[in-house]
Amino acid sequence: MTVQPVLIADTWRASASSGTFQAENPSTGEPLREVYPLSSWADIDAALEAATAAADELRQASPDRLADFLERYADAIEKHSEALVAMAHAETALPASPRLADVELPRTSGQLRQAARAAREGSWALPTIDTQAGIRSCHEPLGPVFVFGPNNFPFAFNSIAGGDFAAAIATGCPVIAKGNTSHPGTTRLLGEAAHAAAQQAGLPAGTVQLLYRTSHDDGARAVADPRTGATGYTGSRSAGLVLKAAADAAGKPIYLELSSINPVVMLPGAIRSRGEEVATEFTTSCLMGTGQFCTNPGVVILLAGAETEKFIDAVAEKFKAAPCGTLLSSGVARALEKNVARLVDSGAKLLTGGSPVDEPGFHYANTLLRVAAEEFLRDPEAFQIEAFGNSSLLVVADDVKQVSAVVDRLEGNLTGCVYSDSAGSDDGMYAEVAPRLRAKVGRLLNDKMPTGVAVSPAMNHGGPYPATGHPGFTAVGIPASLRRFSALVCYDNVRPTRLPAILQDKNARGTWRWIDGVWSQSDVAGQSG
Amino acid sequence: MTVQPVLIADTWRASASSGTFQAENPSTGEPLREVYPLSSWADIDAALEAATAAADELRQASPDRLADFLERYADAIEKHSEALVAMAHAETALPASPRLADVELPRTSGQLRQAARAAREGSWALPTIDTQAGIRSCHEPLGPVFVFGPNNFPFAFNSIAGGDFAAAIATGCPVIAKGNTSHPGTTRLLGEAAHAAAQQAGLPAGTVQLLYRTSHDDGARAVADPRTGATGYTGSRSAGLVLKAAADAAGKPIYLELSSINPVVMLPGAIRSRGEEVATEFTTSCLMGTGQFCTNPGVVILLAGAETEKFIDAVAEKFKAAPCGTLLSSGVARALEKNVARLVDSGAKLLTGGSPVDEPGFHYANTLLRVAAEEFLRDPEAFQIEAFGNSSLLVVADDVKQVSAVVDRLEGNLTGCVYSDSAGSDDGMYAEVAPRLRAKVGRLLNDKMPTGVAVSPAMNHGGPYPATGHPGFTAVGIPASLRRFSALVCYDNVRPTRLPAILQDKNARGTWRWIDGVWSQSDVAGQSG
Repeated sequence: MTVQPVLIADTWRASASSGTFQAENPSTGEPLREVYPLSSWADIDAALEAATAAADELRQASPDRLADFLERYADAIEKHSEALVAMAHAETALPASPRLADVELPRTSGQLRQAARAAREGSWALPTIDTQAGIRSCHEPLGPVFVFGPNNFPFAFNSIAGGDFAAAIATGCPVIAKGNTSHPGTTRLLGEAAHAAAQQAGLPAGTVQLLYRTSHDDGARAVADPRTGATGYTGSRSAGLVLKAAADAAGKPIYLELSSINPVVMLPGAIRSRGEEVATEFTTSCLMGTGQFCTNPGVVILLAGAETEKFIDAVAEKFKAAPCGTLLSSGVARALEKNVARLVDSGAKLLTGGSPVDEPGFHYANTLLRVAAEEFLRDPEAFQIEAFGNSSLLVVADDVKQVSAVVDRLEGNLTGCVYSDSAGSDDGMYAEVAPRLRAKVGRLLNDKMPTGVAVSPAMNHGGPYPATGHPGFTAVGIPASLRRFSALVCYDNVRPTRLPAILQDKNARGTWRWIDGVWSQSDVAGQSG
Repeated sequence: MTVQPVLIADTWRASASSGTFQAENPSTGEPLREVYPLSSWADIDAALEAATAAADELRQASPDRLADFLERYADAIEKHSEALVAMAHAETALPASPRLADVELPRTSGQLRQAARAAREGSWALPTIDTQAGIRSCHEPLGPVFVFGPNNFPFAFNSIAGGDFAAAIATGCPVIAKGNTSHPGTTRLLGEAAHAAAQQAGLPAGTVQLLYRTSHDDGARAVADPRTGATGYTGSRSAGLVLKAAADAAGKPIYLELSSINPVVMLPGAIRSRGEEVATEFTTSCLMGTGQFCTNPGVVILLAGAETEKFIDAVAEKFKAAPCGTLLSSGVARALEKNVARLVDSGAKLLTGGSPVDEPGFHYANTLLRVAAEEFLRDPEAFQIEAFGNSSLLVVADDVKQVSAVVDRLEGNLTGCVYSDSAGSDDGMYAEVAPRLRAKVGRLLNDKMPTGVAVSPAMNHGGPYPATGHPGFTAVGIPASLRRFSALVCYDNVRPTRLPAILQDKNARGTWRWIDGVWSQSDVAGQSG
């Protein structure tokens, strides 16, 4: 049995492993051929040592080297797209096209290039200069960053290629990637491309490292290690909260994306004026990627009425008629079955679906459930279980007051949508409901489903706990996502030649800097030219 | 016995108290006359209810109302300066002049006015507009904020007048102030001025509220309450970590300033070229306010040598000769005595001081200790006890390698200074030591003592754990300090009239906004005029 090596300190080497694992092919349910190691603490320790040395070197390095790496890596991902898509499809069953090849892969390389531009340009660091007081400050890298990637985006959120990776590297932090165990082969191919690009760019040995799996205890130890700068985690709430507790106790920043049911409030005018269109839009969004999006619309709040009944019937028909996708893993399939059962036990009524599909691989029927708002309000926690996958719960309220009551009882979520009549008939209800929903979500949408997460500087892929660990940060969107992996640092009366380049009088890169209360790309006055 | 009322929901009312306390006069050691309540949970609960309603109202209000309040309050503080200074002097023994009347009070009113300007202007919120994607984001207030103030700045860090208060209010968050128990009378006078100003400005009833004391359990419950938005805390590490654990477990942001010994590295060229001057500078900084500054230089690292011995002798002489100030409370005096004893027990040698002064009130002799770096390195934790007060520890290293080793073993601190020869003879050592020190502190200084904390946009009054709870934030400096009390919020495809004013096309206030990759004070293009 050949066990795949891990990438530590510039070398693919045998893991000091305490076990092995194989991924599954979700389309067949069979294990895939390659065998991957479960790393022991010795691997983590070695990676942290190398990352610490790399962090020290990167602090002195030009951001051009990081940008050069990110661009080479983006090129390599595109060059190897065929192999990457084939492997990711085998491991996740996500459609090769358009999803993997035409959407997620270009998004991933595009994100790396955006991060490269941000690294070169430097404005992410919010350099601030007070010429009178002789004080200057900016954000600087925190040091080694652990990235734990999720199962649902094998490229765009991959621990060694996705948003957290790109943000940490662009900031100047080495990354120790902990691959998701459901797609280790994809992660390996990305890791190989990253390693080659890092060597070409001349990055320090410990800048990009890869482990496939650790024990829960070692994971908790890693995020709290004195050498660790910060952690980015996307995944299940239970595992994330264990890491959070460990990192918090050690005073180490940790950025988590934990769970979200992404409430949609469907006001009556929207249903009345464009019900059929909205039913299609919702169904497409909810079933896309077999519902396995962090921003999947998992709960829809509607007002009771004849039009609403028609709308619900239409959605149920669409759910029945739509092809049933493949789930990412046996774990996802088991959890979906269990969580739908819990919703039913709590009193939700099945409109369609609610059972596994008897086919090879991991499939569960497209599932639509329904509950009265009154019942929801009797046990709001029970009805906010995240049934991750192709499932959604409709909550039918008697009046807008009840809609507001439901919204007020929601946990923190990544997104919240309100659909309303474009002719204005819902505006009174909007004014009542939207501020309440605003307080519960990171991104508020109008007349648009939440599943598209644009890599925009204005994006917020974050939100109040327990959607994330801190409502002030976003995992997607450059430059804000970079600042998560930085410390604010100040230079007081520090001699000019000893200042970091970004804070010197001469603004060599045209970085935006906040100088004496004005954003400017100029040199500090009197020092231009 | 008359017990002072608490301020809840616009009313000074009797506390639902479970006990009372009195402050001490530090100059005499006698209790002061006024009696203050220990609030029970009922007070906290009522304050949270009122603050929640206020937060909802403030979300819809113009920032001009907040700015108006902050400016009226600043005026009131200056108008009542005589009474405030007299009360603060009686409760803290800090010199009425220049310290309280001429430094701290103007700083406090100035800070409130800076916060007012920031609230009016709005740039603190980092509004970000992506016109192509139709996505806009900014920072918005988190809701009710608890502020726990420290003992050492009765005005500038007061829970109802200081930096955290000003930042939270300017952001749009109501504040529930928990006064420091060593100066409740000062806090009461400030609270009365704040209340009057809030009424004049027409702020909602629960915007400004004041409690004097709570049990530790209720404090922990308060910071974790679902209605709480965030917490600002400045004080002892032990109490702060209890609050941190509670807030972290509930996913509530908490910003802490816990402890700091503010290392100073004194390189040989600085001692050789201007030893006498530096000895005076250090002595003044260390003994100012009887050493009771968060940024007091509590440890000095030097290189062994004849010049260093002369320098140490000179400092010891100055410590002996300097008048011995009054400590803030019996608690501070007891802790200083205990912590100096712990340092001596660990092996530090007393050069001067080391015992209480036998006079009425709370006094401890100016204390200078010394230890060899070799001994420090045998138990770095033991020698990093914060002996809060007029005391400092000199660590004498054999060579620069040992200096680096000491710096590498330091905990996170607010500040770190390096003094070096201005003619360049120390530059090699600086290059070796400064990057290591940089990684341990929030603010790096050259040739300047850390005790001055300018209210500058470039200031960082923060640093790595355990100096604070998160290295990305500052407690002093506007606008950055405001963002601590905010959430990042995003509007995706939200109809133009439904956007908050700060994100609409028309830029009515000339706020700086990041529009399509450029900082601008203009309207969104095509919408000007």
